[in-house]
Amino acid sequence: MEGKDWLPILETIRWREGRVRILEQTLLPERELYLDLGSVDDVIDAVRRLAVRGAPAIGVAGALGVALAAAQAAAESSAIDGFMQQVDAEAKRLAAARPTAVNLRWGIERTLVSLERVRRDRPRASAKELAAEALAEGQRILEEDLDLSRAMAGHGFDLLPDDARVLTHCNTGGLATAGGGTALGVVLGAHARGKRVFVHVDETRPLLQGARLTAWELDRAKVPFAVHCDGAAAWLLKTERIHAVLVGADRIAANGDTANKIGTLSAALAAREFGVPFFVVAPRSSFDLSLASGEEIPIEERSPDEVVAFQGARAAPPAAGARNPAFDVTPARLIRGFVTERGVETPPFAP
Amino acid sequence: MEGKDWLPILETIRWREGRVRILEQTLLPERELYLDLGSVDDVIDAVRRLAVRGAPAIGVAGALGVALAAAQAAAESSAIDGFMQQVDAEAKRLAAARPTAVNLRWGIERTLVSLERVRRDRPRASAKELAAEALAEGQRILEEDLDLSRAMAGHGFDLLPDDARVLTHCNTGGLATAGGGTALGVVLGAHARGKRVFVHVDETRPLLQGARLTAWELDRAKVPFAVHCDGAAAWLLKTERIHAVLVGADRIAANGDTANKIGTLSAALAAREFGVPFFVVAPRSSFDLSLASGEEIPIEERSPDEVVAFQGARAAPPAAGARNPAFDVTPARLIRGFVTERGVETPPFAP
Repeated sequence: MEGKDWLPILETIRWREGRVRILEQTLLPERELYLDLGSVDDVIDAVRRLAVRGAPAIGVAGALGVALAAAQAAAESSAIDGFMQQVDAEAKRLAAARPTAVNLRWGIERTLVSLERVRRDRPRASAKELAAEALAEGQRILEEDLDLSRAMAGHGFDLLPDDARVLTHCNTGGLATAGGGTALGVVLGAHARGKRVFVHVDETRPLLQGARLTAWELDRAKVPFAVHCDGAAAWLLKTERIHAVLVGADRIAANGDTANKIGTLSAALAAREFGVPFFVVAPRSSFDLSLASGEEIPIEERSPDEVVAFQGARAAPPAAGARNPAFDVTPARLIRGFVTERGVETPPFAP
Repeated sequence: MEGKDWLPILETIRWREGRVRILEQTLLPERELYLDLGSVDDVIDAVRRLAVRGAPAIGVAGALGVALAAAQAAAESSAIDGFMQQVDAEAKRLAAARPTAVNLRWGIERTLVSLERVRRDRPRASAKELAAEALAEGQRILEEDLDLSRAMAGHGFDLLPDDARVLTHCNTGGLATAGGGTALGVVLGAHARGKRVFVHVDETRPLLQGARLTAWELDRAKVPFAVHCDGAAAWLLKTERIHAVLVGADRIAANGDTANKIGTLSAALAAREFGVPFFVVAPRSSFDLSLASGEEIPIEERSPDEVVAFQGARAAPPAAGARNPAFDVTPARLIRGFVTERGVETPPFAP
């Protein structure tokens, strides 16, 4: 590996002077605006609006959200019981912001567990000290996430030949993580290390994370690419010389069934039909081994407005209703392998 | 059958006072505007812009376009040789407006053949008489198209149970034909005859013929429906109780391989995966038995602008390129049956 800097890193989410600074993703690619989130409500709103999105990134947002909650609680009261009650209640609200990606709950849980550990080890720790610990744990999760991206990009490197063509769905680059990337991180890393890669980008309706965000990242990194409508993925997989489909994940069940952005299942079915290997790239924090299969993964249904309107332009008659499942579940049998920080894994997964 | 009026009929394309009147489809559902096309250039432009679209409708547009060319040629010269040369040249230009749907060429050819027949039967026929014949043939094609819609809706009726759920792609209703419909005609006809039908509508990126046009037709006919993003079709086919996928066709090869709007192949793969029967509804004029298989069907690639911009709003960074194949080919093995004016057929097709 060529040291720490070979994978391009974005400042997607950081802790800045007592606030959570995020790159506001709903405005990209038109505007590059950073928002400072000063309260748990701000974080919940940003997560719900997808101003910060991507499973690993909202894991970090969850952890830093707990740090915000702890700082707020410590400022309001120095009594530990009240402090912990308030932090727990805020953490519960935060965890409910989005249901499908397990990383949100994982980041929150891990930060709460770190507080429990401090209380066990240092029973006299003050609310301020606990708040400092919550922040430290959030920062550790963030730094680890960057390392995970580097590890996944490293393990994924060998999956791509030189002069590779990759098809991808949604955004799984720096914007979907603390700044590195999962599936798109593999592409960005391979490019940074000198492999020629061309990327076919599913636009990813309804919110166009592919056309808006993945295209923006590839354009910045000078990786050649072309966007296409999601419905064209199958035809491109049949007619173009595509070597691999690489996608991220919002939650992976014990048997390998994988919830990911709506449209992933279509791409997986087409990849199998046309003999293109299909890989999921995700950190172990996106695995939920407590679920036997994908049947148990809750699927968020978002507002019909996201479907029938686009950036203010109406796409359907006023009376039209719409279905808007935000995720689908790709069965494990369609997935060639799971690129994690540990390597390329297949189910059954080691704990 | 309950007489001629059971299938709702739109005035999608008609001959009015020496011009071709079309319902301008790029403005729907916002505005219902009729355009009068007075020249072959106007027709070519309308066909290219998809102001009139749908395989059967552009077949009619081709025929009426030849009628326009003939009227123009007769007005300019009464010499038969010059007249025929001019009509043939104009017909060639018209046929090149869009490459995939065979109906455009079919409508043009049939009108030219009718002129040849008149010249053979009545060698002294004047240019004006020939122009009148071109118009008469165009009108016959238009009237026949309405009858074909009624016949297909009749044959498709038995494919749907009462309280049926159907998934459909693109627009295949009155707007895609002279006014009746192919796949959506089956739905509209079943509804008109009292069957309860719910329609899951693929929005059909990039130009949203599903969200804009199919939704508009279903709304007018008071058929319940919900629009969804194309990438959600597979998930809905897995999780909803959907009885059939019904789509139209732009060209059907002798072995049953079917070119249709981009995204159809995805829906067909998902339908097979989840055990939902997939039917193509198309008149025999969409069959091209001169082609052994779908490999020979030319696929139109349209402007990248249709992908990277959305109703005037930009969806990708300015530097982004895009692929925009307008059609894909669904292999015959994924298609349960072909509903034509003759009944439900399967390959090999009778001539």
